[in-house]
Amino acid sequence: MKCIVLPEKYDYDGSQISSLWAYNSFGVQEDSVVVFRGACDVKIEHMIDLEDRRANESIWSEDMVSFIIEHFDSTDLKLIYTRQRFFTALVREYLADLGVRTTREGDDLFLNGKKLTVSIASTSAVSQKIHFGINVSHDVYGNLKEAGIGEDKQVASFMKAVGEAYVREFEDIEKDLRKSRPLGAI
Amino acid sequence: MKCIVLPEKYDYDGSQISSLWAYNSFGVQEDSVVVFRGACDVKIEHMIDLEDRRANESIWSEDMVSFIIEHFDSTDLKLIYTRQRFFTALVREYLADLGVRTTREGDDLFLNGKKLTVSIASTSAVSQKIHFGINVSHDVYGNLKEAGIGEDKQVASFMKAVGEAYVREFEDIEKDLRKSRPLGAI
Amino acid sequence: MKCIVLPEKYDYDGSQISSLWAYNSFGVQEDSVVVFRGACDVKIEHMIDLEDRRANESIWSEDMVSFIIEHFDSTDLKLIYTRQRFFTALVREYLADLGVRTTREGDDLFLNGKKLTVSIASTSAVSQKIHFGINVSHDVYGNLKEAGIGEDKQVASFMKAVGEAYVREFEDIEKDLRKSRPLGAI
Amino acid sequence: MKCIVLPEKYDYDGSQISSLWAYNSFGVQEDSVVVFRGACDVKIEHMIDLEDRRANESIWSEDMVSFIIEHFDSTDLKLIYTRQRFFTALVREYLADLGVRTTREGDDLFLNGKKLTVSIASTSAVSQKIHFGINVSHDVYGNLKEAGIGEDKQVASFMKAVGEAYVREFEDIEKDLRKSRPLGAI
Amino acid sequence: MKCIVLPEKYDYDGSQISSLWAYNSFGVQEDSVVVFRGACDVKIEHMIDLEDRRANESIWSEDMVSFIIEHFDSTDLKLIYTRQRFFTALVREYLADLGVRTTREGDDLFLNGKKLTVSIASTSAVSQKIHFGINVSHDVYGNLKEAGIGEDKQVASFMKAVGEAYVREFEDIEKDLRKSRPLGAI
Amino acid sequence: MKCIVLPEKYDYDGSQISSLWAYNSFGVQEDSVVVFRGACDVKIEHMIDLEDRRANESIWSEDMVSFIIEHFDSTDLKLIYTRQRFFTALVREYLADLGVRTTREGDDLFLNGKKLTVSIASTSAVSQKIHFGINVSHDVYGNLKEAGIGEDKQVASFMKAVGEAYVREFEDIEKDLRKSRPLGAI
Repeated sequence: MKCIVLPEKYDYDGSQISSLWAYNSFGVQEDSVVVFRGACDVKIEHMIDLEDRRANESIWSEDMVSFIIEHFDSTDLKLIYTRQRFFTALVREYLADLGVRTTREGDDLFLNGKKLTVSIASTSAVSQKIHFGINVSHDVYGNLKEAGIGEDKQVASFMKAVGEAYVREFEDIEKDLRKSRPLGAI
Repeated sequence: MKCIVLPEKYDYDGSQISSLWAYNSFGVQEDSVVVFRGACDVKIEHMIDLEDRRANESIWSEDMVSFIIEHFDSTDLKLIYTRQRFFTALVREYLADLGVRTTREGDDLFLNGKKLTVSIASTSAVSQKIHFGINVSHDVYGNLKEAGIGEDKQVASFMKAVGEAYVREFEDIEKDLRKSRPLGAI
Repeated sequence: MKCIVLPEKYDYDGSQISSLWAYNSFGVQEDSVVVFRGACDVKIEHMIDLEDRRANESIWSEDMVSFIIEHFDSTDLKLIYTRQRFFTALVREYLADLGVRTTREGDDLFLNGKKLTVSIASTSAVSQKIHFGINVSHDVYGNLKEAGIGEDKQVASFMKAVGEAYVREFEDIEKDLRKSRPLGAI
Repeated sequence: MKCIVLPEKYDYDGSQISSLWAYNSFGVQEDSVVVFRGACDVKIEHMIDLEDRRANESIWSEDMVSFIIEHFDSTDLKLIYTRQRFFTALVREYLADLGVRTTREGDDLFLNGKKLTVSIASTSAVSQKIHFGINVSHDVYGNLKEAGIGEDKQVASFMKAVGEAYVREFEDIEKDLRKSRPLGAI
Repeated sequence: MKCIVLPEKYDYDGSQISSLWAYNSFGVQEDSVVVFRGACDVKIEHMIDLEDRRANESIWSEDMVSFIIEHFDSTDLKLIYTRQRFFTALVREYLADLGVRTTREGDDLFLNGKKLTVSIASTSAVSQKIHFGINVSHDVYGNLKEAGIGEDKQVASFMKAVGEAYVREFEDIEKDLRKSRPLGAI
Repeated sequence: MKCIVLPEKYDYDGSQISSLWAYNSFGVQEDSVVVFRGACDVKIEHMIDLEDRRANESIWSEDMVSFIIEHFDSTDLKLIYTRQRFFTALVREYLADLGVRTTREGDDLFLNGKKLTVSIASTSAVSQKIHFGINVSHDVYGNLKEAGIGEDKQVASFMKAVGEAYVREFEDIEKDLRKSRPLGAI
């Protein structure tokens, strides 16, 4: 699994959640997490979460860090949603390490009661994907600046740390499941 | 999914990791997390982790809180290991809420650099299971008493809180995956 | 799993077979069976069964009871087709209880040699679905009125009984598979 | 898929539920249903249903028709249990055709309120199996003789009819799932 | 599984890779390999391999033998790609039997260093497919004529031999996996 | 995936087919192919192929090259058997490159009409495995010495080449399946 941090500003419009976006954009032929920073404005046709659609929710941020995770090893919805929950907890751990105290409800993180993140997960016939976005600045919602992580260098360092940590966790899981005997039964 | 907290002391000898232990012991016919407290002494024939076997590791604790999680919805090793990692992060969150600061490495939690927990996950042909144990007291390893969670009431409350939290997370995941459209492809 | 019986007339045009229709229409975040009564006229773009398309078959009824079943626990074609066959047998049992003697061929029920029902099953990347329709009245095909089940109250009671029975069977299966040991081998 | 009806008396002791019994006994290298008639006395080590074990239930019949179904196309517990339910409904249909009116509760058939059948389903790492048994005669439980199906010829004809019907249903399902388009999504 | 060799010239434009093409065209309700010969000119919207799209590769041949394989028994990407590799090796074996010495790199065969074949594999929610094409004549790429297999009769015989061989291999695999005991564990 | 060639003589007694043998013996926590050379004498309790058991076949060779392949990415029988067939074809290709002409029937290679190889594949709840053995010398069966590959250096070079080739093929497949769009449907 590979972590790619885009060096330039890159906007998220929702099309990046499509299967094979990472291959098409960067030629990567491994499972991957691509991390970038830019504006976020999700078009209605790319809204995967029907709750957002039904609520006519806008998914908008002037400045957001996005993680796009893609796995080709399974198309099981349960697995990608469990991976999403774990990724959310992982982000929370890294924020805590930076002294940012958040609360978690499912796949959402909150900062001082304000929603800090957006996330969605789903599958196609060939891969499973997660989008996880964290506001860097926002007029209404929680954001990293408010939490004291406002400098570009800090944000860049956070992006790299979390992306690489997920790859390490994934590889660690792959190793661990290769040393456990099958269960007996009563 | 059901959470069962055993009211009496119950020792862990490793046989509880077998598939269907929860049904056989408590008649539960749902996915379940069974939580109990007692001594821990895993017999060699119940050691699922071959690393422990090879290292001739003793899995022993005079007083341990154990969580036994069983799912019948899949026998995918990747899924149960991802669930295990997420459960580990969940335990860490609850400890943090109690003011206990730990570090996490994969499925292990550490308290002041000393290993606080043990965990294993695997599958049989019919179910997938996790054992996650936390020392309440221990001469060598990290333990809850050292962390200031020494009173029986505190421990009991922690056991119930974490067990029920996992059930809520599981049910929340099941709901979330029922409102997401399939992904498009580039 | 949840059974929803629509209180008002609702027409079936084939779009209801799409994944997530139940969530989008009723906000349900469980596996579900939605039961309704109304006209049936399936548009060509919603025809899932290519045999009907190739035969330029019209799927039309002035008054039909429809069951829309959706499961998110698997996307295995074999499973949804076996569920469809079982549902067909279940409908037949309930008709027999009302004194209506039918014959079954695969997923079709016949009344006095005339086709009484239509059915289709398939999967997307996120869910598996069944549509099962029974004519209440029809000029050509078998129908409930001809079978003596013509009063609205009778039909409503039948709709509720079958929908709820399927939920009970599903939940019973989920319980049963949580108490069986894995098989040995010769 | 192949149906094999044993011409001679054959007793069921529970070992026939093991994976690969059909291959080992009859050299069959297809999915199969093997049908035979004889005494039934299930040894405790072959009891798959832990409910029976816990209840210290005896699974005993002096004369029983047994169907042993084995599929190698999947090891999904949900699928084999759905197949079991469908098989139960199929048996009921054939009994009804012979004028024998039964009631069904899950995977059990009752004759005049007395349990007529036993059944279990499970999986190993290589196959999934069902045992379905119907008492031909029994002092306590429902049985075919009491239902008027007492002559050997009648029983033999019933065994063949049901076994072959299941094969036909299976093959019909395999055909049907090869002509359905994938579902769209809302 | 069925092998269908089209008696008339049939051009490949990429639409034949769609799921259910074989059913829609020939009414086949089994897994199948359809073999035909004609021009090849793949439209951009039917290009499954994004590498070709990105490279703006033309997939064109004036005269090509095409094998279209469809399986409905799984939608696992790993399985269809392994089947594709095996099919490639099988084609190579048959060419060798005709005295044509090729080299293989993954799913490509080369004749005197020139690419002789094209191939792609993928899945939808309902089936998995392979296209494997071999140039009969080509100005630039390797082709059967150059290899001395230029007569129509020879080509027709090769098409039939390979198609039927794949069916035999598939059926042989299905038999073999029905006689192996599950593995033990250390 | 990792290839391990054992430098010393190592005898095959069938226990090496057990899941986790590679981890237990060499600490490898990846999918793996372990290659070694030594005597072969399979004990009856390790015979996975029931055909051999029924035939009371001896699996014996005074000098055999063995490939033990283990994958943890799936427990699908169809996949491991397809991998086995592909591996067999791969071995044949490498033998041909050395000028050794064999014939293949399923998973068996023959040299001058004499069986040169033995092979078996199966799964446990945690992994899937293949054993593929080639006689180096044998009184009755085909063997490498007879084929002119008798020197230790030649055999060692062949062992390494084939083992590493399988790893390359596996990794190539993993890459290829990460650049293909999902199929459309008719």
